[in-house]
Formats: sequence, structure tokens, C-alpha cells
Amino acid sequence: MIKNFEDVFEALRAKAVRKRLVVAWGVDSHSIGAAYLAVEKGFVEATLVGDAAKIAKVCEEEGLDASKFTIVDNPVEIKAVAQAVQIVHVGGGDVMMKGICSTDKFLRAILNKETGLLPPKGLLSHVSVVENPNYPKLIFFSDMAVIPQPGFRQKVKMSGFLVGVARSFGISTPKIAFVAASEQMLDTMPACTEGAMLAKMCDRGQIAGCVGDGPLALDVCIDPESVEIKKLRSEVAGDADCLLFPNIESANVFWKTNSKLCKGVRQAGMLVGTTAPCILASRADSVDTKLNSIAEAVMFVS
Amino acid sequence: MIKNFEDVFEALRAKAVRKRLVVAWGVDSHSIGAAYLAVEKGFVEATLVGDAAKIAKVCEEEGLDASKFTIVDNPVEIKAVAQAVQIVHVGGGDVMMKGICSTDKFLRAILNKETGLLPPKGLLSHVSVVENPNYPKLIFFSDMAVIPQPGFRQKVKMSGFLVGVARSFGISTPKIAFVAASEQMLDTMPACTEGAMLAKMCDRGQIAGCVGDGPLALDVCIDPESVEIKKLRSEVAGDADCLLFPNIESANVFWKTNSKLCKGVRQAGMLVGTTAPCILASRADSVDTKLNSIAEAVMFVS
Repeated sequence: MIKNFEDVFEALRAKAVRKRLVVAWGVDSHSIGAAYLAVEKGFVEATLVGDAAKIAKVCEEEGLDASKFTIVDNPVEIKAVAQAVQIVHVGGGDVMMKGICSTDKFLRAILNKETGLLPPKGLLSHVSVVENPNYPKLIFFSDMAVIPQPGFRQKVKMSGFLVGVARSFGISTPKIAFVAASEQMLDTMPACTEGAMLAKMCDRGQIAGCVGDGPLALDVCIDPESVEIKKLRSEVAGDADCLLFPNIESANVFWKTNSKLCKGVRQAGMLVGTTAPCILASRADSVDTKLNSIAEAVMFVS
Repeated sequence: MIKNFEDVFEALRAKAVRKRLVVAWGVDSHSIGAAYLAVEKGFVEATLVGDAAKIAKVCEEEGLDASKFTIVDNPVEIKAVAQAVQIVHVGGGDVMMKGICSTDKFLRAILNKETGLLPPKGLLSHVSVVENPNYPKLIFFSDMAVIPQPGFRQKVKMSGFLVGVARSFGISTPKIAFVAASEQMLDTMPACTEGAMLAKMCDRGQIAGCVGDGPLALDVCIDPESVEIKKLRSEVAGDADCLLFPNIESANVFWKTNSKLCKGVRQAGMLVGTTAPCILASRADSVDTKLNSIAEAVMFVS
């Protein structure tokens, strides 16, 4: 059973998975370094779309063998991004990753109705994964990056994405918690009312393939002792695999408290809802986070 | 300068502060234990209002000298809560603490227009304090407990409370960050637009006694490296004392990620806006958190 990112890499090795990664404007040391490690670990082959001269220079500086990559030379950033997305659009790639281009440019290319990666009426969302030494397994959560204040129908779809990603990691029936500020049924707080509705949909199989409960405050989602003290009866509480946060700020705070105030944390994240998962790593993300994100995306499409 | 809770206790000792703590239905081992430690440390004298027989039993079981307390015998929970609040209402106490009664009952007594503790047209809010070994000083933040989705005018008042509490800890000009999911100026997200407005009010002294900036995502609030990578210029970023979260869920997630997923964290919290600060600790909070909360409240009124 997969409990952490080392287990993920081991699972990918055991399954001998190799998927096609395409990096849009992958001309910086972090993106190239992460793609290189993923190639070395054997679970992707990588195409870098960008200024070939810049790529060659970074590889030389970092001591990386550039011949391990397929390099598509396109020295104009915005055109390189469009070309990278186009490669995936026509089926030439399984996983997409943003390089050092702006998020705006990358999203515009992905959302382009004719040449992009989002199906008609599709919903774009984001699934993150956290490994924290104080929790016994990976935590999958949404959405720290894309949907500011999801409505109820969006939450239903986002739950499906979350459960789908967790299942691709070998968790046959993920436990999903609908996070609120309290497990009290406060009828003026949408996180509470919608948490209860989503939990009921899980009970009835309307959100399929999982066990769900909510509203639950974060302590009772992940801490068995808090569950005991509060005498909650729940199949999910204290042992959640997936957390659906009620808004972008709470999910964002969860990611960043983990990365900036906890020791020994490893993280990953990707866009879902697209025909291929898209890694939207930030400039401030480490090579490790980008590598984990590639692994997350490859697990999801394998 | 105060960097952690040990410094707080030292400061209280040095100032030889002694305030009057009143505990409403303080008949459980955690409340009594925390009050006892605060008495032992010398910064409060404590009155417990509740069933004297229960209190005597807990003191005996825990090996505590009951004669260190003033005990007001009132064996009916709801009446004991009302009596405790009444004592503070008439000036017989400086700091109020909830014992093991329900939050609902406690809040109803505090909010009672004739006998409660909230001034007319007052705003009730909550200020928490976190000591995290991965941050060099205390973090003050609002509001994880009371106001679900503060409006702009409420945020202005909440900022004043936060700054006031930080100043009572000896921070002469606290740095306050207005938290959002991004430091981009996204005009569809209230956390961003209002973060900018609040920052401007700090610039102009309309929120007084502090330096403020926002919108800022949590990483750039507290992590100097992220500030450098993102090339932000800000007097607050990377070094915040105070965090105003845009909604109850994000503040609640910040508290609970700290307490459940980080090691070596110490925390405190209290209600503000009332004539005396009120500690609203949860059943699941440790004796340590309750003791720290008493210290926070005593700092604030000293």
C-alpha cells in the first residue's frame, strides 16, 4: 500500500510505467531538473518545448545530459507554450507541465476552445497531495489553485476528481472528508450545509467509489484522538484520505502551512478535468515538489 | 522581546502581574488544571463557579490543593454559567474562561444584553496565538471561531483587535498581513480586493499602530525565501506578526494544521470585543493550550 512518495516511485518502478511528459517553456533549472529526475527514475520520457539554446545552457550548468530529452526548439515563449499544448492536444503527450512561463499564458493555452485541453462544459480543478511525517498516509486535497469559491455542483465534480486521483494511487475506497470550521450543523455556513449534502451523496453512491463524511473540522478529519474526545461516530473521521476544502483560501493555507511551518513534508499538485493532467507548479516550488507532481500525474494516467 | 510562551510567562513574572480569572462551570480536570497552573505561576487568582462537590473531587483526583481557588458553589450548570458571567459583568473579574459547559450556553450568557459582556454595537471576534518552532516569533491571527465570513467593516475592526493584542505583548508596531490565496490583484476575489483596501488603510493610519500589507498568500506572509523568489517588495511579507484570514475556514485550518500536523507547537486563543477577554477553549484543547490562553488574556488586560 502506498503511504508516501517513496512508495509512489516504487509502485511506478514495479509497474514499469513510462508516460510522455511535455514541458511548456521548460527552460529553467527547476523544471528541467525535475523532468530529468523523472526520466532517470524511468517513469517518463520528456519533451521540452522552448528555446533550445537556453535549454542546452541550463543542462550544461546543471551537469545534465541533454540527449535524455526530446527538445523542440521554439525560442518565442508564447508560441512555445501553444506548441507544447498542441502536442498534447493531438495525443502526442500524456502529461503536461508548465515551465517558467506565467500561469496566465499557460492557462490561456489550456483553456483555448479549439486547441486546448479542457473538454466542452468541462470543469478545471486542482488536486494536491501532501506527505506529512505526522500523518500515516498521503492526504489528497482540493482546491488550492483554481476555483475560488466552488458552488455545490462544482463540489460534486471536485469530489469525483479527488476520489479518482486517490483511487489511481491504489486506494480502492478512499475516505473523503468535507472540511468546514466545525462539525456542528450550522445552517448559515455553506461549508456545513453542503458538507452534509455531499456526505449524503456519498452514502447513496451518487458520489461513487468512496466513503464520505462532513461537515468535519480539520482536527476530526485527521486526528483520531480529537474524534474520540468529541465522541464522533464516522467511518471517515480521524482517517481521511481526501479533503475537500470549502474555498480556495482554506486549501491554500493547508498547503502552505504544511510547506512552510512543518518539517519533512513532501508535496505534489496538478490540474484535473483536462484531457491530460497539467502540472502548474509555482516558481517557488522545489525540484522535489515538481518531481512528485510528475509522479502524481503519471499515477493518475496509468 | 517576547518570542514564545516561555517569554510570556517570564514577562508576566517580571511585571508581577496578578489578575482575577473567573471560570464558568469549571468542574473538569483540564480547566481546573490550567487555572491551577496559572495560579501557581502567580499571574492570576482564580474563582471557579460550579458544583463544589465535583470541583473538590477533581482536585483530590489530580492532587491539587483546592484552597488555592475561590470556589463559588452553584450545582446547576446553566445557573453557574450565568453567575460566573455576572461576576465579571459587575467588575469582579478581569478574565473569563469557559469550563466544560457547551459553547452555546457560554456565548448566550456573554451576549445577553443586560447581564453579558459585549458592549452595545460591539463586535465579538477571536484572536489566536501560535508558537511554531519553524517561525522565529509568535503569530497572532483571526478569526478561527466566531465570524464565519467577515465583511469589510468587520475586517477593519478585527484588524484593530489583532494589533491591540500584539501590542499588549510588547510589539510596538506589529506587522499585519491580510491573507488571500494569492498576492495577485484578482478583482473577483474579496480576499484580494479587501486585502488591498485594508493595506491602504494601514498606510494612512486609518488602521492605527501597525504596518500592514495585503493581499498576501500565506507563504509570502511568513517565508522570506518565498518573498525573494517572488520578488515582492513589502515591509510585512516574510516577517508578519499578525495574520487576518479572509474567512473562518482558512483560519481554522491554520490553527488545526499547526496543532495536528506540526511538532512542538504551542497555542492560545480568546474572544475579544467583550469588556473582559473570554477564553473559549474546546474540550479537545490541552491543559497547555488553556494555560497559554489565560496568559494571553492576562497580557491583554495588563
